[in-house]
Amino acid sequence: MQADTSERIVDVTVTPVAFRDPPLLNSVGVHEPYALRTVVEITTESGVSGVGESYGGTLHLERLRRTAAGLDGLDVWNLNDLNARARRALGTDTTGGDGMAGMVTGSSTVDRVVSPFDVACMDVQGKLVGRPVSDLLGGAVRPAVPYSAYLFYKWAGHPGQEDDDWGAALDPAGLVDQARRMIEAYGFASVKLKGGVFAPDEEMAAIRALREAFPDHPLRLDPNAVWSTRTSLRVARELAGVLEYLEDPTAGLDGMASVAAGTPTPLATNMCVVSFDDLAPAVARKSVGIVLSDHHFWGGLRRCGQLAAICETFGLGLSMHSNSHLGISLAAMTHLAAATPHLTYACDTHWPWKRPDEDVVDPAPLRFSEGAVTVPTAPGLGVELDRDGLARLHRQYLDCGLRDRDDTGYMRRFEPSFSDEIPRW
Amino acid sequence: MQADTSERIVDVTVTPVAFRDPPLLNSVGVHEPYALRTVVEITTESGVSGVGESYGGTLHLERLRRTAAGLDGLDVWNLNDLNARARRALGTDTTGGDGMAGMVTGSSTVDRVVSPFDVACMDVQGKLVGRPVSDLLGGAVRPAVPYSAYLFYKWAGHPGQEDDDWGAALDPAGLVDQARRMIEAYGFASVKLKGGVFAPDEEMAAIRALREAFPDHPLRLDPNAVWSTRTSLRVARELAGVLEYLEDPTAGLDGMASVAAGTPTPLATNMCVVSFDDLAPAVARKSVGIVLSDHHFWGGLRRCGQLAAICETFGLGLSMHSNSHLGISLAAMTHLAAATPHLTYACDTHWPWKRPDEDVVDPAPLRFSEGAVTVPTAPGLGVELDRDGLARLHRQYLDCGLRDRDDTGYMRRFEPSFSDEIPRW
Repeated sequence: MQADTSERIVDVTVTPVAFRDPPLLNSVGVHEPYALRTVVEITTESGVSGVGESYGGTLHLERLRRTAAGLDGLDVWNLNDLNARARRALGTDTTGGDGMAGMVTGSSTVDRVVSPFDVACMDVQGKLVGRPVSDLLGGAVRPAVPYSAYLFYKWAGHPGQEDDDWGAALDPAGLVDQARRMIEAYGFASVKLKGGVFAPDEEMAAIRALREAFPDHPLRLDPNAVWSTRTSLRVARELAGVLEYLEDPTAGLDGMASVAAGTPTPLATNMCVVSFDDLAPAVARKSVGIVLSDHHFWGGLRRCGQLAAICETFGLGLSMHSNSHLGISLAAMTHLAAATPHLTYACDTHWPWKRPDEDVVDPAPLRFSEGAVTVPTAPGLGVELDRDGLARLHRQYLDCGLRDRDDTGYMRRFEPSFSDEIPRW
Repeated sequence: MQADTSERIVDVTVTPVAFRDPPLLNSVGVHEPYALRTVVEITTESGVSGVGESYGGTLHLERLRRTAAGLDGLDVWNLNDLNARARRALGTDTTGGDGMAGMVTGSSTVDRVVSPFDVACMDVQGKLVGRPVSDLLGGAVRPAVPYSAYLFYKWAGHPGQEDDDWGAALDPAGLVDQARRMIEAYGFASVKLKGGVFAPDEEMAAIRALREAFPDHPLRLDPNAVWSTRTSLRVARELAGVLEYLEDPTAGLDGMASVAAGTPTPLATNMCVVSFDDLAPAVARKSVGIVLSDHHFWGGLRRCGQLAAICETFGLGLSMHSNSHLGISLAAMTHLAAATPHLTYACDTHWPWKRPDEDVVDPAPLRFSEGAVTVPTAPGLGVELDRDGLARLHRQYLDCGLRDRDDTGYMRRFEPSFSDEIPRW
């Protein structure tokens, strides 16, 4: 029995969207009232459509549009051709535009731009075959993908607005309350704290409070490289045995290597190893023990499978990074993680920070149970575009006025002396 | 439009076959009158079947059968489950049985055993989707896959039999004649000589004669690790600029590293890097510049895609190794090579040494033109089992009496003092 083989792309839509985001604090400032994303939808000549999701900044959006313009006639099965077309569309325009508030630099522009189209093509492939995307990636090795609670220091609400539903979390007790509520709602079995906001001793106190409140939950701390190697070593030493891993304590492959050499605490990264070009030097220097993959900047789902093989081959662990995202990304992350045997940790997700009433898909197939999302079994990604939701969030994008993520600029409106220098401690 | 989704395996057939093979000389002896292979065929509940091909030795055959017995109900899309089932079937039985006359040891038994089933599953996948296997691997980046002429020193015929059609090749002139004939028939644009048979100076003279006769053909020499590092360095130095690459001049990662450090001639291997476990130490030692992939021992087609990504990421070139094989393997090699952007050299193949009237598939879709095989575009591998051919070659297997490849034992029947010690020179 053969499927219809008409799978050439006849239409691509690239739609920037904005969804509300709480004032989550990090090393470069604070999340603005809206997070920006781009939704791509491709349609083939036989009328099958697929979706992908990516960053929403101006330069990246322009690159997505430029690449989209060159996809007419692309065979959705030919992902190598997708890469070649993206390379042609981008030419020498390959710097900047990471859309991650300066916290990830040096990732490959082509890999970043290709990603949502890669996901959309695999969504179509899955629909054509009648199989979930996880099957196209080699098959699910787990029926559900565990995610980690992602704790943030946060203000009670955006300045000038009402307090949000989560309220403030600015000390250990606030974080423990946040964790408790998040774990109760989602069942998360591991916990990550976004650090780099307060002095290391305060964040260590928070980790200790979390350890006391949740004695069995693996804990992670991510200060986004704002510590010196000396501070990193001190924290790593003091939290030895407490942390599952310490994420990007300090900047650069050499800095991370010198910390790694001085502590048994595994070091993870989504800042110093963010592209295939970083892997050989990181392996040579023994800079990290764990890579946080992310199909949004590692070139899509297949490329992340290759990253996983590299990590397995070179003795590195593998976890998964997240930015603020919508349901398309959660579906893609879940399929990818399900089909990655070497994924050795629960994945990160910002999902709980998104309002349930804002999305571009019906999130029903993406329900959490015991901290994990059951891998969708419907064809493709298993989520369908909610055109009303997409229109609403696009309208919100047009109205909100934000065009590029700027956590630092937003923070300085309220704390003019805020510095994003590193190392800060 | 959705395909039929019934893709569980209901039947697996494992058939050993033998096909006639000329007396090709190598470092461990001489090819016996028959080459042994195993053909696997899987059939799904919806009646779609797929094929794969592998080695034919006793232990490997038994492992294939043991693994086959555990594949009932396997979803052909779940290659991760295939790997898990093979691991369970093999348990701790993981040494020996490489089927390559002792020239490749240390490859992963699971990867070797899984390979033909992996190929057969992808053949079925392609048929279900109506797409060639190359599309399931990311899409062909080249319409045809270039292969290299594979020259062998050889006797005129098997002792006690009539001379074969190719006649003897035991000196430079004989090899040049062989090359000329092979290039005329197939159009090959590069040339490999299997060395390790005569003293290095004689083989260097052969390379020089080939260079003179074919000034524009890239040349490779493969002595299968029978040289000391000192001899390897001398040959590499004397043939600098003449060879495209020198393949496995000496044994082991350390030996290869010391040769690599002393010559600009790129070193390739299918002997010291034969499994994922070998890659990290090879990279750390800078042992080789080029890996010869081979889906038969690297775990199938997807795993070879991962190997390609590793090679690209760590600055290694990629070529493709071959043993004596039938049409199923040529089809699989062609799809894999077509979908591997990082494949940087023409592939090896023993194809010209196989009689055209012996195969298990109709070889019509696998015609050579200008040294390349056009990538089949029919669904799956694009070749169909010839059940009469399969029955004939299975009968030949039963009748020929050979059960394990033994180039050394066969050689010693005629040259009792033949030594397979290394280093020999």
